Amino acid sequence: MDYFYGPGRNHLFVPGPVNIPEPVIRAMNRNNEDYRSPAIPAMTKTLLEDVKKIFKTTTGTPFMIPTTGTGAWESALTNTLSPGDRIVSFLIGQFSLLWIDQQQRLKFNVDVVESEWGQGANLDVLAEKLAADRTHTIKAICIVHNETATGVTNNLATVRKLLDHYGHPALLLVDGVSSICALDFRMDEWGVDVALTGSQKALSLPTGIGIVCASPKALEATKTAKSVRVFFDWNDYLKFYKLGTFWPYTPSIQLLYGLRAALDLIFEEGLDNIIERHSRLGKATRLAVEAWGLKNCTQKEEWFSDTVTAVLVPPYIDSSEIVKRGWKRYNLSLGLGLNKVAGKVFRIGHLGNLNELQLLGCLAGVEMILKDVGYPVKLGSGVAAASAYLQNNIPMIPSRI
Amino acid sequence: MDYFYGPGRNHLFVPGPVNIPEPVIRAMNRNNEDYRSPAIPAMTKTLLEDVKKIFKTTTGTPFMIPTTGTGAWESALTNTLSPGDRIVSFLIGQFSLLWIDQQQRLKFNVDVVESEWGQGANLDVLAEKLAADRTHTIKAICIVHNETATGVTNNLATVRKLLDHYGHPALLLVDGVSSICALDFRMDEWGVDVALTGSQKALSLPTGIGIVCASPKALEATKTAKSVRVFFDWNDYLKFYKLGTFWPYTPSIQLLYGLRAALDLIFEEGLDNIIERHSRLGKATRLAVEAWGLKNCTQKEEWFSDTVTAVLVPPYIDSSEIVKRGWKRYNLSLGLGLNKVAGKVFRIGHLGNLNELQLLGCLAGVEMILKDVGYPVKLGSGVAAASAYLQNNIPMIPSRI
Amino acid sequence: MDYFYGPGRNHLFVPGPVNIPEPVIRAMNRNNEDYRSPAIPAMTKTLLEDVKKIFKTTTGTPFMIPTTGTGAWESALTNTLSPGDRIVSFLIGQFSLLWIDQQQRLKFNVDVVESEWGQGANLDVLAEKLAADRTHTIKAICIVHNETATGVTNNLATVRKLLDHYGHPALLLVDGVSSICALDFRMDEWGVDVALTGSQKALSLPTGIGIVCASPKALEATKTAKSVRVFFDWNDYLKFYKLGTFWPYTPSIQLLYGLRAALDLIFEEGLDNIIERHSRLGKATRLAVEAWGLKNCTQKEEWFSDTVTAVLVPPYIDSSEIVKRGWKRYNLSLGLGLNKVAGKVFRIGHLGNLNELQLLGCLAGVEMILKDVGYPVKLGSGVAAASAYLQNNIPMIPSRI
Amino acid sequence: MDYFYGPGRNHLFVPGPVNIPEPVIRAMNRNNEDYRSPAIPAMTKTLLEDVKKIFKTTTGTPFMIPTTGTGAWESALTNTLSPGDRIVSFLIGQFSLLWIDQQQRLKFNVDVVESEWGQGANLDVLAEKLAADRTHTIKAICIVHNETATGVTNNLATVRKLLDHYGHPALLLVDGVSSICALDFRMDEWGVDVALTGSQKALSLPTGIGIVCASPKALEATKTAKSVRVFFDWNDYLKFYKLGTFWPYTPSIQLLYGLRAALDLIFEEGLDNIIERHSRLGKATRLAVEAWGLKNCTQKEEWFSDTVTAVLVPPYIDSSEIVKRGWKRYNLSLGLGLNKVAGKVFRIGHLGNLNELQLLGCLAGVEMILKDVGYPVKLGSGVAAASAYLQNNIPMIPSRI
Repeated sequence: MDYFYGPGRNHLFVPGPVNIPEPVIRAMNRNNEDYRSPAIPAMTKTLLEDVKKIFKTTTGTPFMIPTTGTGAWESALTNTLSPGDRIVSFLIGQFSLLWIDQQQRLKFNVDVVESEWGQGANLDVLAEKLAADRTHTIKAICIVHNETATGVTNNLATVRKLLDHYGHPALLLVDGVSSICALDFRMDEWGVDVALTGSQKALSLPTGIGIVCASPKALEATKTAKSVRVFFDWNDYLKFYKLGTFWPYTPSIQLLYGLRAALDLIFEEGLDNIIERHSRLGKATRLAVEAWGLKNCTQKEEWFSDTVTAVLVPPYIDSSEIVKRGWKRYNLSLGLGLNKVAGKVFRIGHLGNLNELQLLGCLAGVEMILKDVGYPVKLGSGVAAASAYLQNNIPMIPSRI
Repeated sequence: MDYFYGPGRNHLFVPGPVNIPEPVIRAMNRNNEDYRSPAIPAMTKTLLEDVKKIFKTTTGTPFMIPTTGTGAWESALTNTLSPGDRIVSFLIGQFSLLWIDQQQRLKFNVDVVESEWGQGANLDVLAEKLAADRTHTIKAICIVHNETATGVTNNLATVRKLLDHYGHPALLLVDGVSSICALDFRMDEWGVDVALTGSQKALSLPTGIGIVCASPKALEATKTAKSVRVFFDWNDYLKFYKLGTFWPYTPSIQLLYGLRAALDLIFEEGLDNIIERHSRLGKATRLAVEAWGLKNCTQKEEWFSDTVTAVLVPPYIDSSEIVKRGWKRYNLSLGLGLNKVAGKVFRIGHLGNLNELQLLGCLAGVEMILKDVGYPVKLGSGVAAASAYLQNNIPMIPSRI
Repeated sequence: MDYFYGPGRNHLFVPGPVNIPEPVIRAMNRNNEDYRSPAIPAMTKTLLEDVKKIFKTTTGTPFMIPTTGTGAWESALTNTLSPGDRIVSFLIGQFSLLWIDQQQRLKFNVDVVESEWGQGANLDVLAEKLAADRTHTIKAICIVHNETATGVTNNLATVRKLLDHYGHPALLLVDGVSSICALDFRMDEWGVDVALTGSQKALSLPTGIGIVCASPKALEATKTAKSVRVFFDWNDYLKFYKLGTFWPYTPSIQLLYGLRAALDLIFEEGLDNIIERHSRLGKATRLAVEAWGLKNCTQKEEWFSDTVTAVLVPPYIDSSEIVKRGWKRYNLSLGLGLNKVAGKVFRIGHLGNLNELQLLGCLAGVEMILKDVGYPVKLGSGVAAASAYLQNNIPMIPSRI
Repeated sequence: MDYFYGPGRNHLFVPGPVNIPEPVIRAMNRNNEDYRSPAIPAMTKTLLEDVKKIFKTTTGTPFMIPTTGTGAWESALTNTLSPGDRIVSFLIGQFSLLWIDQQQRLKFNVDVVESEWGQGANLDVLAEKLAADRTHTIKAICIVHNETATGVTNNLATVRKLLDHYGHPALLLVDGVSSICALDFRMDEWGVDVALTGSQKALSLPTGIGIVCASPKALEATKTAKSVRVFFDWNDYLKFYKLGTFWPYTPSIQLLYGLRAALDLIFEEGLDNIIERHSRLGKATRLAVEAWGLKNCTQKEEWFSDTVTAVLVPPYIDSSEIVKRGWKRYNLSLGLGLNKVAGKVFRIGHLGNLNELQLLGCLAGVEMILKDVGYPVKLGSGVAAASAYLQNNIPMIPSRI
């Protein structure tokens, strides 16, 4: 049943899907149920309430759609906008590119602000566009919080400040796929109108739920949004929310129980502690990269991502060989370089339910792979640099003190 | 973690989601994996090949979309049709109604052929429409093979005959959600252009994969279909099929392994044996209903469904009380009457990985519930009628002879 | 991986191992752990405390030995007795026979009181022996509370009364393998000195824990008991109980978590409710047997067992054919007749985490099998008789009212 | 349900119970079954045949007893020996000590050959004893192949050579608990009469099966062995082997399926490859210890164990603090120092289904802990030393080449 078995655990360090904690795997290990019985609505109610906490919103309305991140994007756009609407969108890597492709195919008028891959969204250009847009032709700003392809985190607080500064009413739509529940994200404080993530990222579940959260302003926008939508239509959900049965169509029973378990673990650890843990893992990884004498694809510290690190390799090495070798020799799964950075970067995902020793095992593996492919790394150097930092910063596990 | 626990097994007899076999639950009990490693594409290739067998097609192209039946509907429509296209659609119950609602919201020009609930699609009216449509304004016929709300199975072979008789080029789009892998379904022989089902029905998996299969003619139609689509766009899949990586976005690793296990079990039992098993379960259920002195919502034998039986209750009984009582007293989950037949029917789902003794336990439960709610049933009568038939017709389990 | 697969669920009605509830299967779905970390002792402590409740003892000391019922027997005997000790033991069926065989091989002087299979322990003979034993040569009374082979429940309260009446100090050792946690059992009230059960019986776990509970008097007896013992020695456990690490050797982590989950479910349902549920299931089964015109192997009502019913078949039928046919045609597992009653009885186990509709499915299956093997049963008759009783007696599921 | 939860995976490096591979966890994730149906005997037959391969025997008879290693010891002794029999037994650490304690409590006349903890069995003394024993008063040699407490592997080939040299007929009883299926072990070639292991060690299962393998000579010895035994009696097994039903009492269905899956993985990897993998892990660990400037408890290279390394700490450090800290801060489980070496050593278990990156993560963790407790380790030094060796020696994963 398993394809290409290797002894021991697979070391999963792609930036999603990520490792699922055992208690969550257990919670999903179950038969189907009637989703129209009282049990599933009762559980769904708690999920909708609790999922808001990971978006840091009290005023938003969440939708847990049986889809992927791509579907969550489509849901965010079609529920709030009409074909032809002007949107400003930032192209900074493969995932923002794919979202822009979707925006264009959904017939929006996309004003693309491009940055070199490795840089963040160019907010100076945004400022100019907002300043120039006296008549408010811009209906929405679409921004990826954390670009998974390059390991770049954008500054959402600044985006909000700019919108406020210019008194601009554009909706703020945020892809938080590789940020929410791992990086500092504040839906209400930053005035995000639609935020979204996928279950297989920092929530550490299987793929299958696109979680989309809409501000009151976003919900208001649905009334005039003319984009054609049925499966992704929030109004169908809202209708069933009112009925108290919650589901316009059949959800995955297993994922709902899994989400319940995942949220319980998240609250047990504490969202702020989780964000700090990701900060430690990101910092440790960057220290290792530095010790190896390699460059981070991310060009400035302000954009460093704590959920994924894209590592540039010297021109004489094909980064895809690193990924292949990881899998073939070390049972280690790393992320490929995508599109413009294919062959040039490999990626270490460090998000989700992950601890420091797991990361150090991965870093030790990367060192050996680098040597395998001819890069003159000093074995142990990255682990030493990361450990030196971690040994000073890892807290005691609260439940075990 | 469990809501509203009751001792012993839940008896799950809603017409979906259905019972998952233990080997499938086991196969899904796993951590995430990198879906870009060689393992997942290798497995996906076998799934795409094998899934065609349950549609009985050799020329079709399957898509395993991370969505529900509602999404599979949307995928079938938007990939083959353009807004404004005239389609003929049959309204015979709640699920055909919901599909028609979707068709209308997707801006098609829907020519609705309505039947009384409990009757099949009116194919005489279809004949008239095809005969009258000399200029081929009808672009597609949309038909639900098995209407889950009323337990009505439509005759697809006749639909094909009519199209052929009139030499009409309309596409034939079929909802096989509660039929495929349980009822006799022949995509190639019946010239079905798009057929679809959901993983949580006869395949006996969790919700989460909408399986859509397109004929060469349907694929051809995508080239001119102007409906806006991104998440559901088959072309994105086809692009990745060519690359051999198969997935335009992240699939559920767990469901893929589950589907692999489910198909293995299906082929071990034999698709024709599975269809016969459903025939036995359907017949046994109808004999029980007759013995209870109750009426089948399905008005004629030609439409009897072997996957779900909708049972009419006397006017002095509210059928929703039967469903509630089943859950509250007997740990039995039955299907509610929906919309026009709410309060008037309850439904026994008998599809998926289910055997005869499970059904007899359910029928014994229904008898006690009927007595609970004041219907003068003779306890044991339905079980006796069903057993008399089953005892003559159950084959030996092949692996155990 | 599965041997001899058949569609749908296996209907498991042997009197052990019994069906495991899903929440317990989930709880055991886990990796190993260090049993010397603080976690396992912390959990073990709760288990030792809670397991006493199912024995209805506050003064007893429980041992959760990684073994089977046979090992639990050996533990009970060797910790309290010395070779040559006289013990009175009742032979009433295959399991009491096996225990007596063990007693003899362990070199005790076994005074066997035999009854016809189908009858209970002959307590008149016990009275005589106690009366005659002025010098207290009898060191222990060994009795099986519920003889699984014949479906006979012995009256332990009477045994205690006799001991008290004659002021006899013999230890009372009770095999509660197919009774504890299903039938009324009162360790303290009945002055039981050692009681034991196995995890795979009414506790509804996998095989692997022999749970033995010792009274203070039994613990005192260990000081003089000269039987050789190491693996089964309670003193090794007691030593580690004092240390707070609890385990003299490695326990099964999975079974400990499973036991925790099982106990949680038991307390949620309520031990008294569980006993009542078994009483309903036993009564319903016996009514079905009567309706079929068959005889219960158990000869008097006072001995009727609520956990297993042994059914006598007419001489022209080989009962082992019934068991074979159940498995080969209906995916139904029934218990064989053993030893003296081989070929003459088949057994329906109705213990553990089981509900009424499961039992009715089994009874419907037995009816069809009876017809298969040539017995002129009226199909539906047993189900009708059982349902008539059950429909009047099943309570609402408390969590769902 | 989880006690003392910490984020990410637990890093389990005690020398048993060890990590269970996911496919094995999956295989055990199941309901109970009737062990008297044809399925379980059919599977058991394959297990008995295949389990011999991991003992490297074709002439031995295996017993898969529902017990732990302690029970397996008792089974080996009581089936082959009589009270008062003289046995030579080597005391070299806590587990050999416990076995000797058992031997004494079972009333054998134990001739203890003691070594300093950290040294192997003193085979010179054995030679002397064999030479002196002209009348063959020594009935058995009992030796632990790998002493888990000190990380010492004894030379069994030499033991056999000595027995042969002196033409001594003593039985050779070997505890292979932490060796079989990880270290080079050759039952037939080395003339081992009874070899035993536990499921939770290199087989990488939960605790619960004591696997004991008896040579023809050992089986012959059962005929005269007068030790009292019932639960552990091989003859009860042999009786059921002949009947083809295999089990004298109820086995754990789950562990049997787990063992089936474990053996399948073992044969897929190849037993010799597994032994090489353990050799790599052992060597890498010892290189790290050396790099840290610490001493191995094992005093000579010839005794180095490839399944567990006991590390001596400087006198100013309490090794139990290292173990505590691992668990409390790093989610790392290390082995305690036991008895004579309590406080002086901590142990790294590197056996079972484990790969190199897992070990490197553990070593990185140990480095940080050493720093935590005040030992002046150079962070990264051990990982560097281990990696340098591993990067030259890890083979490609065969299935992925």
